[in-house]
Amino acid sequence: MVGIGNALVDVLSHEDDAFVERLGVVKGGMQLVDEERAAAIYQLMGPAVEVSGGSAANTMVGFASFGGTSRYLSRIRDDQLGGVFAHDLRASGVEFDVPPATHGPATGCCLILVTPDAERTLNTFLGASATFGPDDVDPDAIASAGVLYLEGYLFDSPEAQAAFRAAAAHANDNGTKVAVSLSDGFCVERHRDAFTALIEDHVDLVFANEAEITALYEVDDFDEAAARVRHHGTIAALTRGAAGSVVVTDDGLVAVPAAPVEQVVDTTGAGDLYAAGFLFGTSRGLPHEVCAQLGSIAASEVIGHLGARPQVPLRELAAHLLD
Amino acid sequence: MVGIGNALVDVLSHEDDAFVERLGVVKGGMQLVDEERAAAIYQLMGPAVEVSGGSAANTMVGFASFGGTSRYLSRIRDDQLGGVFAHDLRASGVEFDVPPATHGPATGCCLILVTPDAERTLNTFLGASATFGPDDVDPDAIASAGVLYLEGYLFDSPEAQAAFRAAAAHANDNGTKVAVSLSDGFCVERHRDAFTALIEDHVDLVFANEAEITALYEVDDFDEAAARVRHHGTIAALTRGAAGSVVVTDDGLVAVPAAPVEQVVDTTGAGDLYAAGFLFGTSRGLPHEVCAQLGSIAASEVIGHLGARPQVPLRELAAHLLD
Repeated sequence: MVGIGNALVDVLSHEDDAFVERLGVVKGGMQLVDEERAAAIYQLMGPAVEVSGGSAANTMVGFASFGGTSRYLSRIRDDQLGGVFAHDLRASGVEFDVPPATHGPATGCCLILVTPDAERTLNTFLGASATFGPDDVDPDAIASAGVLYLEGYLFDSPEAQAAFRAAAAHANDNGTKVAVSLSDGFCVERHRDAFTALIEDHVDLVFANEAEITALYEVDDFDEAAARVRHHGTIAALTRGAAGSVVVTDDGLVAVPAAPVEQVVDTTGAGDLYAAGFLFGTSRGLPHEVCAQLGSIAASEVIGHLGARPQVPLRELAAHLLD
Repeated sequence: MVGIGNALVDVLSHEDDAFVERLGVVKGGMQLVDEERAAAIYQLMGPAVEVSGGSAANTMVGFASFGGTSRYLSRIRDDQLGGVFAHDLRASGVEFDVPPATHGPATGCCLILVTPDAERTLNTFLGASATFGPDDVDPDAIASAGVLYLEGYLFDSPEAQAAFRAAAAHANDNGTKVAVSLSDGFCVERHRDAFTALIEDHVDLVFANEAEITALYEVDDFDEAAARVRHHGTIAALTRGAAGSVVVTDDGLVAVPAAPVEQVVDTTGAGDLYAAGFLFGTSRGLPHEVCAQLGSIAASEVIGHLGARPQVPLRELAAHLLD
C-alpha cells in the first residue's frame, strides 16, 4: 500500500475542557494554524509528549504492524522533528525515502489537546507537508501498489490537493485501488464539492466517521448518509466510535461492534488505525465483516494509550482472525 | 530550590534485552555517547517517544508538582528540542530563564532503552549541556534558595564539574543547603575521589541508590556503605528499589517501605522523583520518615508510565501527608 498525507509530529498534552474553550477552537475537530498561532497555543499548553503522527502515516504504520508492506509519501524539513518523523516511520517498517527539504517551512506538527473524556482536539501547522505537490507523487510506487490511500486533510493545501488528484488518476489507470479517508467534518465542509467529485470519479473505498459522512451529504442522520453512499460503486467503511462500524456496499450494510477497551486514554488515531486494519483485511481478500473486525482491533489498541501509533504488534492482537 | 544538571530530551523506545546486549552497553547504567554514536544507536532503535528529561530537571519538576518553588540552571541550544525542553520545564511551573546558545552543540538528548522488566538503559549525548560552566552559575538564585540540588552526572563534563564546585561553595557561604544525587554507579567510579571530597567539604544531603553508595565506598554490602556514610554530618537518603529507602543520619537509620505501584512500566526518573519528594518534605520541616514517604509516593507515580516527569499533581497524591 502507498499512503499520501501530511507528515506531522504530534505534540500531546492533557488539558481540561475550559482550556479548549478558551482557545476558541471546536472540541474534537481539527483547526489549521499558522506558525505564529501554533507557537502561541504551544506556549499555553502544559508539559507535552512528542510522538510521530500524521493521519495517513499512522495508517501506514498500522498496516505494517499487521504484517503488510507500506510506503509513505509526504514532505518534511531537514530539522530535528523531521528526523524524528522519518526515524519513527522507518523503525515501524514503513518505506519512506522522500529526501527532506533543505529550505522552506519547518516539519509540520499537530498540537493535540487531550481532554479528560479522552477526546482529542487538533491544531495543525502543516509546515513542510503543505509543499507536497504533483511532482512529489511517485508514479511507479503507485502503479505497483495494491492500494493508494489518501487522507482528506490533504485537501486543505491546494498544492497537495492537486497531487491528490494526480495520484488518484494514476492509480485508476494502473489498476491500483483508491481509498480515501474524509479525516474531519469541517475539512469535508470546506471541500464538499471536491470530495464528492473525487469519490464519484476515482475512489473505490471511503473511510469516514458519522460527523464526516453526514457533513458530506448535508444530512442529519447517519442512516440517511449511509443510504446516500450506496450505489456509487464505492465501498464505505463508516465508524461510529463505541458503537462500532458499518460497512456499506451495493449489497447492503454490515454492522460490526467495536473491540473492547480497558480504558480509553486518547482517541487520537482511532480512525487511522481502523483504516489500517480494514485495508489489511482487504489486501488478504478477507470478507468485509472480518476487515471491519481487524479495524476495530487496531483502533482499540491505539485509544488505550497516548499517541496514534500502535505500541504492540497488531498482527499478534489479531492472530485469531488471521491464522 | 535551585537545581543544576544536564538539560536533556529523553528519547524512549521499548527494546528487548538482546538489543541492549548487541549494543554492548551495561543494562541499567548510563553511557556517555558522542553525536555520531547517538545517531547510530537512534537509527537502530524502534519507534520512540520524546519527553523532556534530565535528572535534576525531573527533580525540579517534581518539587514544583508538590507545590514548591524551583529554578533550573543548564544549557540548551536554540533548536527544536531545546524549545521542547524549555517549554516543558516552564509549563511544569519551574523557572528557567537561561538563554539558549546560538552556536555550539545541539541540545542534549538521552536515548533510553526500556526493557520488558521496566529497567532503563541510558545513552546520553550531553550536547549543549556540557558547555555549562562556572560563569553560568547564578549566584543570586543560589543565595536566595533554601536548597541547591546538583546531579552527579555533571561530573562527566569538566566545565560543569567546575561549575558544580563553584555553586556548592557559594551555597555554603550563603547558608543554602547543598544536596547531591550520585546519579549512576559508573559515574561514581569515574569520579570517586572528587565525589568523596565534595561530600565531605560541601554537601548536607546525599541521594544514592544501592549501586551508587556501594561504588562510592568500594564495598559490596549496602549496610556497610550505610555505616560509612554516617558521622560525616551528612544526611543520606538511600533508595533500594522495591525494598524502599533508608535515611541515614548521625542519629541512626530509618527504613521506609516503597509506595505501592499497580504496574511498573518504566523506572526512568525513579531516583529523581524520590529526591523531589524528600526535598519537598525537608523544605516543609517534616520528619525524615515523612520526607522518605513523600519520595516513595513521587517515585511510584513516575515508574507507572513512560517518561520521567509526573503526569498528575504530586501534591494531590500526597495530600494525606501534607494537609
